[in-house]
Order: sequence, then C-alpha cells, then structure tokens
Amino acid sequence: MRASVGEGGVEIRTVWMEGGVVKLIDQRRLPGELVIFEAKDFREVGFAISDMVVRGAPAIGATAAYGMAQAQMQGRDLQAVAAHLTGTRPTGHDLFHAVDHMLQAAEEGKDLVHEAEAYAEDSVQRCLAIGEHGLTLLPEGARVLTHCNAGALATVDVGTALAPIRAAKAAGRKVFVFVDETRPRLQGAKLTAWELSQEGIEHAVIADNAAGLLMARGEVDVVITGADRIAANGDVANKIGTYEKAVLAREHGIPFYVAAPLSTFDFSLAGGEEIPIEERGEDEVARVGGERLAPEGSPVRNPAFDVTPARYVAGYITERGVLTAKDLPSLRAEAAGSKGK
Amino acid sequence: MRASVGEGGVEIRTVWMEGGVVKLIDQRRLPGELVIFEAKDFREVGFAISDMVVRGAPAIGATAAYGMAQAQMQGRDLQAVAAHLTGTRPTGHDLFHAVDHMLQAAEEGKDLVHEAEAYAEDSVQRCLAIGEHGLTLLPEGARVLTHCNAGALATVDVGTALAPIRAAKAAGRKVFVFVDETRPRLQGAKLTAWELSQEGIEHAVIADNAAGLLMARGEVDVVITGADRIAANGDVANKIGTYEKAVLAREHGIPFYVAAPLSTFDFSLAGGEEIPIEERGEDEVARVGGERLAPEGSPVRNPAFDVTPARYVAGYITERGVLTAKDLPSLRAEAAGSKGK
Repeated sequence: MRASVGEGGVEIRTVWMEGGVVKLIDQRRLPGELVIFEAKDFREVGFAISDMVVRGAPAIGATAAYGMAQAQMQGRDLQAVAAHLTGTRPTGHDLFHAVDHMLQAAEEGKDLVHEAEAYAEDSVQRCLAIGEHGLTLLPEGARVLTHCNAGALATVDVGTALAPIRAAKAAGRKVFVFVDETRPRLQGAKLTAWELSQEGIEHAVIADNAAGLLMARGEVDVVITGADRIAANGDVANKIGTYEKAVLAREHGIPFYVAAPLSTFDFSLAGGEEIPIEERGEDEVARVGGERLAPEGSPVRNPAFDVTPARYVAGYITERGVLTAKDLPSLRAEAAGSKGK
Repeated sequence: MRASVGEGGVEIRTVWMEGGVVKLIDQRRLPGELVIFEAKDFREVGFAISDMVVRGAPAIGATAAYGMAQAQMQGRDLQAVAAHLTGTRPTGHDLFHAVDHMLQAAEEGKDLVHEAEAYAEDSVQRCLAIGEHGLTLLPEGARVLTHCNAGALATVDVGTALAPIRAAKAAGRKVFVFVDETRPRLQGAKLTAWELSQEGIEHAVIADNAAGLLMARGEVDVVITGADRIAANGDVANKIGTYEKAVLAREHGIPFYVAAPLSTFDFSLAGGEEIPIEERGEDEVARVGGERLAPEGSPVRNPAFDVTPARYVAGYITERGVLTAKDLPSLRAEAAGSKGK
C-alpha cells in the first residue's frame, strides 16, 4: 500500500519480518502518524494482536505466521507459542489457520521463516485475485458502502473488500466509497479513510447510522465488507454492525458481498451460531480519546462481531472467483480432502 | 426529572423562565456537569437551539414558546423573532407548532408569559399521558431498545420514548433499556444514559452497530423512539439511525413504536419525503472532543435525521392513546377543523 511520509511516499506492508523482529504498522496510531511497532518475541506478537496494533483476520494470520517463525528462530516450544497466540482473539479464523499451517510445516521439518514469507506473499496474491474477481461487480461510477476496514491494513497488503476498489482505480474506473465510521473502534473513519486518502480514491466518511438513509435515497449501489470467519453454510462473522448493513441492503435490493480469502472459511463449523463472538472492554464504547462519553457507572455491552446469515449474502468474493453459498459444499469437500492428505 | 447535585438531588425541568431569562439545562455539558444556560434575548434563545444547548423536538418547542414570551416582555417585533427562531433548525415540527401557537395568542392579545407557562405545563401533562398509554406495551421484565434521547431532556420533563419506561419504574415493574449511543452526537450515551442513571433504571449503553446482534439473539422485546416530525401518512423523521432500527426490528418481528405528542405531527405534509432533512457540519462526525478521528481531508457526510416509513411503525404512543397510521386521517381532519376556527 501507499503511505505518504513527509513530502514523499513509500510502499509498505502491514506486517513483515526483518532481522528476526516482527514489524507492524501500528494501527492504533493511524491516521495521525505512521509508526512501526516491533515485536521481539511471541509475547510481543501476542500483545500486538490482542491490543489491536494489528487487526483484520488475514493480517492477524500473517502476523501469527511470522510470530511462529520468530519462535522457531529463538528455539522456543512451538506448541506453547501456538497456544499463546491462538489465545489472543477468538473470532477471526485466519489466526487459527495460519498457526495450524505453521505447526504442520514445523512437523515436516521446514524452515518457518521461509514458510512465513511464503504465507505472506501468498496472502497478497490472493488479495490481488479477489480484486480482479470483485472488479466485475463494480461498473463505472459504482457507489460502494463498506464497513470497518477490510483494506491493505487488514491483510498483508491490497485488502479484501478494498481490493476490488483498488482494482477499479487501477483500471481507470470511477468509483466512490461510503465509509461507515464503525464504532466503537472507528476502523472505518481512521483506517479505511486513511487508505482511500493515500490512494486518492473518492470517499466520504459517515456515521454508521447514516447508511440506511443513503440506501433509501438510492445513493448506494453495492455493499462490500470483509469477514473474520465464514462457517461451512456461508454464515459470516464480521465486525459488529455488518449484519445491520446486510439486512438494510436486502431491504433496498442492494447486493451485499463479502470479500475474503479461503483462509477465512472455517469448514469445521456448520453454521454461524457456532462462531465464538468476542466481547471486548467497556472503555472502547464509553471513552473516545481520553474523554468519558457515557456517565460513570452506566454499564456498557460491547460485542465486537456479529453474524450475518448466508441468506443475506449475494456472493463471496474469493481468490477463486465470486462464489455463492451453493459453491461452499464442494470447497468444504476439497478442504477435507487436502487435510486428509 | 431527578438530577443529583453534590450529595443530594433536585427536581429540575429542561427549560423554564425566571426573571425574564429563559433558563435551560446545558445539554452540551452532560453527563459531565449540570450547568444552567441563561438566554437573555431571542438571539441567545436561537443560539441555544441551533448550537444544541437544548435539543429534542418538544423541548425546542417549549424553548421557542418561552423565547416568544420573552420577546413580548422586551417589546420586540414578534414576527421578526418568530422568523429568527424558526430559522434555527428545519426538521423538528414542535418548533414551528409552538411559534405559530404563540403568534396566534399574541394576535388575540394574550399575555405570552402566561401562554408559555401553560404550553410548558401542557407539554409535561402530555408526556405523562404518553407514559400511561405506553406502559400497556411494557410487560414485567420488558427489554426496550431506544435510540437517541427522547427523555425528559428532549421535552420539558418526563420525555416521550422514556415516559413509558419511567411509568414502568414508578409502577414497580422491572424494565431494562438498551441505549444506542447514537452517533454522531452521542445523545444516547450522554443524555439517555444520564437520565436512566439518575432514575435508577437498569440499562446498558451499546454502539449503534450492536443492536442487530442483540435483536438476533432475542434480547430485545420492543423498540421505542421519539420523533422530530411525523407526516400525515405516519412517516416519521427522527434522529439519524432510527430508520435502521425500524428495519431491523421488523426483520426480527420486534414491534417498533414511536412516542410523540400531537404537536410533533405535521398534517400539512402528505408523506415523509416532504420533511426537510438537516445536514449538519463535518466536525460532528470527524471529531470527538478535541480529537480528529478521520484523516484531515477525508470528506464527511452528516445527515442529522432520517425518515422511517409508516409501514415499519407498530404504533404511535401519543397523549390520546396508542394510535396506528389508520387513526391519523381523523386526527388530521380534527386538526384542520380546529385551525379553521
């Protein structure tokens, strides 16, 4: 992704490894400043995930892959590191997928640094393919609504929901993005708006509450979000509020697409009701910056994800094309086959 | 309403007049501190409305009524003051209703201070009646979702959407309130949570995004909101995001009620598409406290209200009972008759 630094710009990834250190764009500091967080051991990698230095299912997956590689370099007990890393956040699937992949590679005697680099590079290629497939859904002048950040920052680079938008821009196609600010952590206002600004893609930030009005006025052509975990039947866990957008989209006859690599699909779960939903701390809702918004003593509920049933999803934009729920059983069978090998 | 001050508590109204000064709870300062704003002439009354020292359609109406009374005391041109006050905010109907009422009274040679006091007292009585009628919709243990603040602070006292909840509490009935924080201005997190805390009513503040998940989990029994303006066909303009909650409620078979006095009904408008929707400044979305959330240069769209079509509304909780859209034509005829007199 592009990031301006001073007068110029750099090409940068969300996560990489350098000299045995896992390096991450510190997403807690954006859009204010571009700061690199350095994780020197698995505890710091775990902290980076749980404190949301890095977030977004595929980005967390790649971070964990690098964390496992680092742990092998440092001669640590890989099972213990795997347990520590997978204990950080429960909902996104890529974390579990990446750690399993690295444990498997270690068992096969592979060098995990090489494996992690391949995992990250593979992730970028998958996102580029998602962009190409998703581009077919965005005609000239398309007005897209997105929720949370499923951009380059949520992956290693390029993004999932933002990949087709980047592809449209690259193809010289006009595209406009409504960015749900995405309370409580404001990943839309802070991260998606930052990415779109960096790329020079036209957009407007809106309160999450405004999407319904814009849809009713006919100002939204398509909704695209990312996903944290997709069950075998196509139910999608994603950032809290995604479900509201899916229901509203259907009410207005607007197609609702989910962009995600196959690493986000969890074929071990039959349906969305089996996906664990993380509840996070009260302060994410009660405070912004240093300021307490709600009265002291007013309780807060803060579920971080919700589940959108497959019936609301027009399609899954994957590296294998735009799929529907009907395509998932054969993918599941394929995944079971490759696991059995 | 009850408000704690130091160790004790006081009974206080949202707006009143004292020594020729219009006094208002400064709602920009809650829940942090209880400060009284003093408006000494119509310009300060207008500022209090436009800068949202006072907000909520019925509270704005009463404030304007007192402002007109003050203008008469000060020997001002009432038509000019009326034009100034009605130019402050376009969406809510009570403002126009109250100013018309006061102009009419002035024409009849009445003392406007007396009229304004009667208007405010009448508003409180209407809210109490809304509470009694709405109470029939809240069985023991009801879990209510509300959006924005339609409480005592949005009226002279008691509230509209919160009136049935206060009545339930007074009747010893158990009730729980999910409070949408209501971005961008957070009237839910700041004002509704404050009122419920003051009254000792059980509640939890949630991000607006979380309501869909809670509904899907079966944790919400009924949705009650206020209204800023209701057209003759029953379409409801209310705080941005209300429409999203109405669509979600219907999707889950949860009844969605609108609580409002008859002064909020605008029978001169056939449908919601005729209600003017205020667009407010970018900073309400882009900043919280002093902090800029979105990147500098990212555009913002900030419509302050949306319109919920009548087909989503299970009923209108008014001082005349719980009405449906079918009851509105006879009310309209009645209103036309009384205007003709």
